[in-house]
Order: sequence, then structure tokens, then C-alpha cells
Amino acid sequence: MTLRTALYQGPGGIPAAPGDGVAALARAARRAADAGARLLVTPELSLTGYALGAAVREVAEPADGPFAEAVSQIAAEHGLAVLYGYPERDGDAVYNAVRLAGPDGAPLADYRKTHLFGAYERTCFTPGEEPVVQADLDGVRLGLLICYDVEFPEPVRAHALAGTELLLAPTALMRPYEFVPQSVLPVRAWENQLYIAYANRHGTEGAFTFAGLSCLAAPDGTVRARAGTGEDLVVADVDPGLLAASRAENTYLADRRPELYPSLSPQGAPRR
Amino acid sequence: MTLRTALYQGPGGIPAAPGDGVAALARAARRAADAGARLLVTPELSLTGYALGAAVREVAEPADGPFAEAVSQIAAEHGLAVLYGYPERDGDAVYNAVRLAGPDGAPLADYRKTHLFGAYERTCFTPGEEPVVQADLDGVRLGLLICYDVEFPEPVRAHALAGTELLLAPTALMRPYEFVPQSVLPVRAWENQLYIAYANRHGTEGAFTFAGLSCLAAPDGTVRARAGTGEDLVVADVDPGLLAASRAENTYLADRRPELYPSLSPQGAPRR
Repeated sequence: MTLRTALYQGPGGIPAAPGDGVAALARAARRAADAGARLLVTPELSLTGYALGAAVREVAEPADGPFAEAVSQIAAEHGLAVLYGYPERDGDAVYNAVRLAGPDGAPLADYRKTHLFGAYERTCFTPGEEPVVQADLDGVRLGLLICYDVEFPEPVRAHALAGTELLLAPTALMRPYEFVPQSVLPVRAWENQLYIAYANRHGTEGAFTFAGLSCLAAPDGTVRARAGTGEDLVVADVDPGLLAASRAENTYLADRRPELYPSLSPQGAPRR
Repeated sequence: MTLRTALYQGPGGIPAAPGDGVAALARAARRAADAGARLLVTPELSLTGYALGAAVREVAEPADGPFAEAVSQIAAEHGLAVLYGYPERDGDAVYNAVRLAGPDGAPLADYRKTHLFGAYERTCFTPGEEPVVQADLDGVRLGLLICYDVEFPEPVRAHALAGTELLLAPTALMRPYEFVPQSVLPVRAWENQLYIAYANRHGTEGAFTFAGLSCLAAPDGTVRARAGTGEDLVVADVDPGLLAASRAENTYLADRRPELYPSLSPQGAPRR
């Protein structure tokens, strides 16, 4: 059974009022459900905006805060899994986080960005420490990463080795880094033999102009859906049959020689 | 100082007579030298052809055999470093190997392919066990891989971590895998912040038709030279200044979090 997946490239900008981000997500969820989607992926920090500066601490919420409650209701109303981004408060720490709400509204997974990008993010956020977070939806194994994470081969490879079939990657990719959605994402999907749903921001916030170009990249190297550079919602199917055929054709995962790669993680796994 | 690099996409096919491969390399070396190149990269198994079948054992030579002697003379005549591919005999084992001869004709490095592709190669060759082989030329740190090796993120990352600045990748990439030279190679160069010289075969040998499209990929994601699909020789400069500027802009190597990647090489490095 295919998993129809919607990528929402919006709403763009920092919400003028606190509830605007959730309202935009509710509208996108309705459009996604009308298009037959079972999963909606939204950008990094989709509920609050990206370039918040010090204000990020003020809008940060616990994982089970008001954002979670609001999105849970939206997901359950449409029978649609929803991935959203927000600044997560945990004690004194603030993480650049995403939550996946299941189609019944119950939380399926939480992930904190492990590879922070640039001085701005390193000032605002504490990096996450859990590299591989997964969930199951309709028989498809999902994985979660955020933006800069997927530009590194290693975290995506770790997902492939852990069985991820559809990697969800909310992002806030700026211009002039269009090379990432245009070239890096299809290669990541190909070399790891999995799908990647990459949902980007658009528009300008302070010094940052986001590049749009959200995409669903497939394991055969094709791009199944591609957004423009403004607000957009695109839909495409994740097909386990295509995934199986592609993995049979391109046997990268079986042909690795991990004993030759000790320099990539010098400390290796804990030893007994 | 830039390092002018020539990629020879030829001669194509299995040589009709034993000396034909060396003769073609001599002609390419003259053309490369005339174009001001200091380094010539030729395809995988450039001196013998690829689809030899069982005959590969008959044409295999020790690393310091007649091929080495002939290419040493060619390199010294033109003051040109030359990378060539051949089946290497070592005792009972035959490796899919390359040697880099220096501009004075002396050997600079030997590499044996570590990731063998498909049933044909696994029948004919023993895999190499040394993942990172390097050499220095005119102040540039060179690294050696072969074909399928570079389709894996890990061996290229290992080179980047070891300081490789220009990765030489002789290859025998078949149709319909044009995605590799067109998309994977520029991404490998970008994500690892190094140059890659990818010299492919062309033409048909038995069941294999090679894709050509040899390229010099730069760390900024651009392709500095691109061959067509027939016999070709292309030349471009490797610029340490561009490399330094690109590494300052894209800090992937510094921003890795190796402690999060233990699954990529579970045994890790030897512990004391």
C-alpha cells in the first residue's frame, strides 16, 4: 500500500499573532486530507518561524504543551499524521525540535536536531543527542531528521542501517544553497535506498531568505514532487513496491564494508 | 599554484594487441602535456580493458611489472603524473588495481579496489583491504579510489578526514547509471569539500556499455570539466585557493558529530 505524503511549504515568515502558525497548519492539513494524503510534513520551526532570535526562548514549549494539543486535534480531525517543528523547552534547555502526531492525534515520535547550523542556531539551541528516531505508519518505517542533519551522509546512513524507509526532513534552507534540494537530496535517497520528504520554508525573515524547492526524493534517484519557491503544497506517493525493487537493483546497503570505515566514528560502539 | 588535471576517457574496448593499451595512454599523455597538465587520470583497467572474463588472470601483472615500466617512461618523458588501471597479480590473488606514477616516473601510490561491483568483479578479483591510499603532488594531497568505491559515502569521507584534497577515481561505470557521474559525483565533492577526478570508460565490451561522462567535480558543487560519451580528453585546474575558500564557507568537516555515528562502523578503531 502506498503512503500518500504531502509537503507543506509554508506559511512563510514569523507569525504575526501566536496562533497564526497553528491556523496555517490547520488549513494545510485540510488541503492535504482533501488530496488523499495520510501524512503531512511541514518545515523546520513551522509553528513559530525560524529567525526569532532571543525570542525563541519565550515561544518555546514543552513537547506536550499547547502546540502538541492543537496539532493533535488537527491530526485526529483529518485522520492524518502531521509532522511539525517548534522550539522545545526542557528545563533550561531549548531544542530545535519536531514532533510527529499520528492520525489518531497521539504522539508517534519526537526528535531534536543534532547538527545545528551556524552561529545563530548554536546561540539559540542545545543540540540533540539521539541520532536515530523512528516511528511506524501504515507499515512504513519513518525516520526524523532536521535540515542541516541531512546534508551529512552519516545521519542518513544511520537511518538506512536502522531500517528507515521514509525519512522526514523539515528544513529551513536558505539561499544560495539550492544545491542541497536540487542535488544533495536525490543523491541521499539513492545512496541510502530510501525516500526523503524534505519540506522547506520560503520567504524572508531578517537576514535569511529561504529557498523553497521542497521535494519528495525517491530511492531510484527521481524526484516525485517538487515545490516552487513560494507558498506551496505538493503531494506524492511513497511506494513500498518501488522501494523493494530499487533495493534489489542497487545493493549499496549490502555491499558496504563497515570494517574499513573506523575513522568515521573512531570510538565505535560501546564494547562489552 | 593550481594543479592542471587531464581526464582521458579512452581508448575504449579491449585492446586488440597487448601493447595497444599502453600506446593509447602514451598518445593521451602527449595531449595532456601539450594542454599543460601535470596529472593524467585514466579509467579503471585502462591498460587491459574491463570485460576480460577469465582472461583477466592471464593479463594480470605484478605492481612493478611491464606496465609499470612502460608507464614510468611515459610519465618521465612528459613530466606528467599518470594514474592507470590494470589487474594486479600478487601470489594467487588478482586485484582490480591502480598505480600513480609520478612526473619523474617513480611510483607514488598503489591502490586495490575495496568495493567490488557485481558478480563479474567478485568472480575475477580479490577485494583490497586498505581504504585510504594517498600521495602528494605539487603540494596537493591526492587520494585513490576506484569506481563503485565512490558511490559509497564512507570511503570518500574517510579520505576527506585523512586530508585528501583531490580524489582520483578511475571508473568503468555502465549505462544506465548516468545518475552517478551527473549527480553523485558533484555531491560527493560538495559534502566532503574536495575535488574528484572521475575518469570513465566508454564504448561496449560484451554485456557492458560504459557511460562516459568523465568529470572533474569541485568542492563548490560545480563541474569544472565534463567529457562526452565517446573517446575524449578534458582538462581543468584544481585550485587550492578555491578549495580553501569553499572549506571556509561550508564547514561540514568541522560540524560532524562522530560520536553519533557508531552504527556506521560498529567495531570502531582498535582500542588500546
